[in-house]
Amino acid sequence: MPSYSLRQLAGIVGGELIGDPDVVIEGVAGIREAEKGQITFLANPKYESFLDSTRASAVIANRGGNQSTPIIKVSNPYLAFLKIVTLFSESTLERYERDVHPTAVIDGSVSIGKDVAVGAYAVVEAGAVIADRATILPHVCICKEARIGEDCLIFPHVTIRERCEIGDRTIIHSGAVIGSDGFGYAKEGETHHKIPQIGIVRIEEDVEIGANSTIDRATTGVTLIKKGSKLDNLVQIAHNVVIGENSILAAQVGVSGSTELGRNVVLAGQAGLVGHISIGEGARVGAQGGVTKSIPPHTSVSGYPAREHGLARKIYAAMARLPHMLKEFRKLKERVERLEKGPERGSSTEDD
Amino acid sequence: MPSYSLRQLAGIVGGELIGDPDVVIEGVAGIREAEKGQITFLANPKYESFLDSTRASAVIANRGGNQSTPIIKVSNPYLAFLKIVTLFSESTLERYERDVHPTAVIDGSVSIGKDVAVGAYAVVEAGAVIADRATILPHVCICKEARIGEDCLIFPHVTIRERCEIGDRTIIHSGAVIGSDGFGYAKEGETHHKIPQIGIVRIEEDVEIGANSTIDRATTGVTLIKKGSKLDNLVQIAHNVVIGENSILAAQVGVSGSTELGRNVVLAGQAGLVGHISIGEGARVGAQGGVTKSIPPHTSVSGYPAREHGLARKIYAAMARLPHMLKEFRKLKERVERLEKGPERGSSTEDD
Amino acid sequence: MPSYSLRQLAGIVGGELIGDPDVVIEGVAGIREAEKGQITFLANPKYESFLDSTRASAVIANRGGNQSTPIIKVSNPYLAFLKIVTLFSESTLERYERDVHPTAVIDGSVSIGKDVAVGAYAVVEAGAVIADRATILPHVCICKEARIGEDCLIFPHVTIRERCEIGDRTIIHSGAVIGSDGFGYAKEGETHHKIPQIGIVRIEEDVEIGANSTIDRATTGVTLIKKGSKLDNLVQIAHNVVIGENSILAAQVGVSGSTELGRNVVLAGQAGLVGHISIGEGARVGAQGGVTKSIPPHTSVSGYPAREHGLARKIYAAMARLPHMLKEFRKLKERVERLEKGPERGSSTEDD
Repeated sequence: MPSYSLRQLAGIVGGELIGDPDVVIEGVAGIREAEKGQITFLANPKYESFLDSTRASAVIANRGGNQSTPIIKVSNPYLAFLKIVTLFSESTLERYERDVHPTAVIDGSVSIGKDVAVGAYAVVEAGAVIADRATILPHVCICKEARIGEDCLIFPHVTIRERCEIGDRTIIHSGAVIGSDGFGYAKEGETHHKIPQIGIVRIEEDVEIGANSTIDRATTGVTLIKKGSKLDNLVQIAHNVVIGENSILAAQVGVSGSTELGRNVVLAGQAGLVGHISIGEGARVGAQGGVTKSIPPHTSVSGYPAREHGLARKIYAAMARLPHMLKEFRKLKERVERLEKGPERGSSTEDD
Repeated sequence: MPSYSLRQLAGIVGGELIGDPDVVIEGVAGIREAEKGQITFLANPKYESFLDSTRASAVIANRGGNQSTPIIKVSNPYLAFLKIVTLFSESTLERYERDVHPTAVIDGSVSIGKDVAVGAYAVVEAGAVIADRATILPHVCICKEARIGEDCLIFPHVTIRERCEIGDRTIIHSGAVIGSDGFGYAKEGETHHKIPQIGIVRIEEDVEIGANSTIDRATTGVTLIKKGSKLDNLVQIAHNVVIGENSILAAQVGVSGSTELGRNVVLAGQAGLVGHISIGEGARVGAQGGVTKSIPPHTSVSGYPAREHGLARKIYAAMARLPHMLKEFRKLKERVERLEKGPERGSSTEDD
Repeated sequence: MPSYSLRQLAGIVGGELIGDPDVVIEGVAGIREAEKGQITFLANPKYESFLDSTRASAVIANRGGNQSTPIIKVSNPYLAFLKIVTLFSESTLERYERDVHPTAVIDGSVSIGKDVAVGAYAVVEAGAVIADRATILPHVCICKEARIGEDCLIFPHVTIRERCEIGDRTIIHSGAVIGSDGFGYAKEGETHHKIPQIGIVRIEEDVEIGANSTIDRATTGVTLIKKGSKLDNLVQIAHNVVIGENSILAAQVGVSGSTELGRNVVLAGQAGLVGHISIGEGARVGAQGGVTKSIPPHTSVSGYPAREHGLARKIYAAMARLPHMLKEFRKLKERVERLEKGPERGSSTEDD
């Protein structure tokens, strides 16, 4: 286990150290669990109350404190935390020995780069390409002519179907399926005839795909996940979808066929998008949002059907008052009726 | 790669050719991606604007055009497209060599038909039956006494649990789990005791099950997916559910225990159904719809809780006007109050 | 196949027998499918109508009947049913032979207990511990230093990532992923930098995890599933979540990062919870409920955004009346306008 002084760590993250520079740090932990000798961070204001009680030997934060724990002050604590966690983590190349397990079944026609790791019982079919330093863990199945980029990390039980392409440094978590057939049928009477899905999936560089997510191959052409995008677990991407650069798709999101997302889009958990629409650059969809039409750039939407977030908030707040309002409405109608009848006016009842 | 003249293709799909019959077609593609030498199709009116700009050498459509690109005119372009894509695709029997990989672990008691393909590291346990021409890809696990029908196609990493039955020509995509235990417990105090799930899953002929979908075995009896139904990715089918013939379940749909669907039912993406209800023949549930009670035949529902689609649309449209309406309501109450006070009437304010 | 007299079965479940004690029972089945020689049960009042027509030779119920079929009367029919189903089921130790398949790849440093079963092509990496009587089925991947408790049952294609801990008697269904990386990034400009996820998942005793569910490892510290909890299929648990004892999470539920559930919580199907909130002991969330803030103990919520269930029901009932109410509101405004105009009053129109 490596260890660093606070002086060293403050230098590495480019922060201002408030406290003793010689304190030694041997690990990192969350603010509630951290012990003596560990450094923690404060990024979420919800956890500020833990700042006074943490047992950590130092805290990364975007402000000083009036307590005795040393602080490394930085503008982006989460990013500084990342750098420090990385110091205490093994790299992929260290974690997984650079060799091919004798049980791996690799077709003779496969092109394998330098310093590749292939785990037990991995299967790599004819014509596949595995670039330098890629890590293929046990039970991964890479089908015919699929291409795995440099420094990729493919966790156990991933399936990468034929001809799909994975960009450099992309990480794919266990159980994900890349390139399953798109869901396309032509109806004749009551029968659904399967349309052969002859396209592929192309995932660009620096993408991460969560566990048990599914990305369908295109009917023809390409289902495309652009570089830097991050998909969480159990996400469904239908055929011919395009996900723009650096987009974030939280767990259990579903994107229907041929829908295109611009760059920097954020879809919160369980959001669902219908097919054949466009989501503009920088747009955001709230958790469970049900998107039924295209969204302009830099627009936040939420609810079902998804509407501009400010309006949606007003609608959902108003809903809470609806039952009471219906009662009041009945009363108001009665008051109007009494007014209309005329003579005996004046005995109006106040409603609550 | 095969090639066909437009004359040949028009004949195969039974369409009317408008344009040069001697144009040669060597592939198929989407209307936006198609290149010279390829044929494309126009089924979705959204893409009509691409008809003039496509680089395809021909288009399958349900009408003529006034542009120079040849058209094969048919009543169902999607079905004609399917026929043509199929001409340019390998069949399952061609794609996967008809042999059993030496690493497959197949119990001596397994019955294996003719022209079966079994991939690397597949496991087939005692008493299982694999019928003629079935294709079992790498890493598939077929548990004790399971039955796989003729011409089935089982993709990598599928689990088929003990005694489950898969009908002829059924396709199961990677990571799907057929016959996991139903979610059943008997509560005693705070403890949940597991009910052994001793039933099975029966999937009939010509069904397709999407990647990472899960179909639970019955507590007792059968969880049943009837012939011709198509389930997309990440679909959850609970114990003792019945899915009627030719039904369509889009991605991330969930059907709770003992619910029964009639034939030709369509559940759009992320829809959820409670348990112990009936969904009538030809009924449809909109995306994200939350179905809390039985639905009569040929009825469309949507929203949460799911209601008849026409009503649901009116409700969701009305919701958008709710915040404004609450303001107006307050104003109207004030006007009524003024009327009730009497004397100084006449100075009414118009609200907007 | 074992057989029992009704006298024996009534004794085993501690019930009152109404009918012939010498009737012989050779199996169990649902009330609609049961045949002569089988016993069934009636727990859901929805199925009472089948009580008269069932072909079963006996029924477990919480009341007598006036029909000819013998009844075993108990206060908790589902629990009695469980005991009887168990009589007719093999135990895990009987179902899976106690040996290690020769194809299993088990590192020399792995500690393996007594009477363990390990299936074909299972992989167990360095430093892992497998306790007595654990059952590891084919294609399971147990990564470095993971710990599997006594009597665990791990179904095919499960991935248990490095250092994760599985408590005694816990069951994990096919395709589940335990310990995938949490979804954490630090943003710098438009780039998302991955935060190494160096924590673990700890699952306590008597837990059940459904097929293709995903449980992410903590950023630092522990993602914790406490004892007796049951998670259905396709459930997503994010990093640093805590699930309290004996909680029930139905299929396709998603729990976002750092959210904590108390004991005996029930989340119905497709419910989603945002991160960093607390769900009190005994709280319940309805199907598809979207929980946006903490819930006090013993509180039921439903809808989106989730609200106290009684209020939510009123809101959703009121929504159905909203379109009509908007029309009425317009009419009422007109009536008030007429009243305000004054003279020609009296000709009021009744609205419906």
